[in-house]
Amino acid sequence: MNEVIDLLKKHRSIRKYKPEPIPESHLEQILLAAQAASTSSNIQAYSVVAVTDPERKRKFAELAGNQQHIAQSPVFLVWCADLKKISIAANLHEDVELHQNVELFLLGTIDATLAAQNATIAAESLGYGMVYIGGIRNNPQDVTDLLELPPLVYPVFGMCLGIPDQEPDIRPRLPLAAVYHKEVYKEEGLESEIKAYDDITRVYYATRKGGGKGGEQETKWSREMLRRFKANRLRGHLHDFLVNQGFRLK
Amino acid sequence: MNEVIDLLKKHRSIRKYKPEPIPESHLEQILLAAQAASTSSNIQAYSVVAVTDPERKRKFAELAGNQQHIAQSPVFLVWCADLKKISIAANLHEDVELHQNVELFLLGTIDATLAAQNATIAAESLGYGMVYIGGIRNNPQDVTDLLELPPLVYPVFGMCLGIPDQEPDIRPRLPLAAVYHKEVYKEEGLESEIKAYDDITRVYYATRKGGGKGGEQETKWSREMLRRFKANRLRGHLHDFLVNQGFRLK
Repeated sequence: MNEVIDLLKKHRSIRKYKPEPIPESHLEQILLAAQAASTSSNIQAYSVVAVTDPERKRKFAELAGNQQHIAQSPVFLVWCADLKKISIAANLHEDVELHQNVELFLLGTIDATLAAQNATIAAESLGYGMVYIGGIRNNPQDVTDLLELPPLVYPVFGMCLGIPDQEPDIRPRLPLAAVYHKEVYKEEGLESEIKAYDDITRVYYATRKGGGKGGEQETKWSREMLRRFKANRLRGHLHDFLVNQGFRLK
Repeated sequence: MNEVIDLLKKHRSIRKYKPEPIPESHLEQILLAAQAASTSSNIQAYSVVAVTDPERKRKFAELAGNQQHIAQSPVFLVWCADLKKISIAANLHEDVELHQNVELFLLGTIDATLAAQNATIAAESLGYGMVYIGGIRNNPQDVTDLLELPPLVYPVFGMCLGIPDQEPDIRPRLPLAAVYHKEVYKEEGLESEIKAYDDITRVYYATRKGGGKGGEQETKWSREMLRRFKANRLRGHLHDFLVNQGFRLK
């Protein structure tokens, strides 16, 4: 269609990086592009912390469930929802406390995610690779302590950045019809779309190279979804962490 | 830096559209690019509903707080967090109920947001303009009813898409130093960064053309933040709506 859409469609997560650092000028361009993303009513309710210190990256790798690509990537970005800045701004005028609720939690989370995805596109346009790290929510309090995040700031996800040292296959996605609905949500076709995707992913999981564990012969997408969402995988600590950090999910 | 980064940095929200429809082939390319975005463990926990029917768009315009650009744009997309599909997939193997909590709520919300931002970039690369519509969360139950969303699916935000019929200014953002932290979060400089930004936004609000209301002479960013986050603006109904829709924020 055009080069931008080609770039978007070539995305694959990178879990092995060359040791070369990212020049500060590139990182700044990536983050300026991130800032250009939409933000609800211009509240810009996010921050990003760049970690390059090897010892600190090793700690994050451990905290995220021993993901060695965090230690190996030259820059590890932690994207945070940040209501602290809005609070500072409002308090320049009146002594107010933000009335926390799930809407404010969403605003910060969405703003951080929009900015991060712009950073992803900018980084990939410069030849870098990346992978999102939801694993930092395994130990959000330790991550918060390491980053010295104040109340009203929480780490949404991490992002490894660097020059790719692998060429993983592009992962096939659900058929478009399982994602795209016209006028109203159509539930009836979903089961057959999922079964069609199971046939595709059975082949993919058995033969893929690079990225993830690879070679799990006897699985497919629907089975992976079952495996993933059994109760012990669900980060049940997250609610109390968030409340402790000053967010309210009411 | 390069054309992709230039495109990202040129973003501005569009609130006035030409009447030309978006060809289905373009919409499909935009949504295939959206699907290429990262998704946590490939769960793809989102869906998008495209609304083009004029009467339905008029209803969404009303529900979002009388935003006429929704009725005027040729396509209104509603991006939804969708745990229903994962539930269908898991239930192909075992009779299970997903153990809902805030982590699952986050996974769906983040997946929808990553995909939507890819759609934004793809659309802008084709010459379209867009604006996110958080206002659909003003009346989430009515939106859910109109879209016939099943339980475990909720509307995160809307998106108007179409050919721009205005050229609004690019909105200045906070200084990079107020967003970008190195190794740890630095709180001490934030107040002065915000004051520097207040000086910039005071001029912007007084003189901007296009987009938003325009011409509010005596405001600035920190004052807008105060105005916006007084308690009556906070969508306090959202928690109960989400619980009713099958999500749990525990």
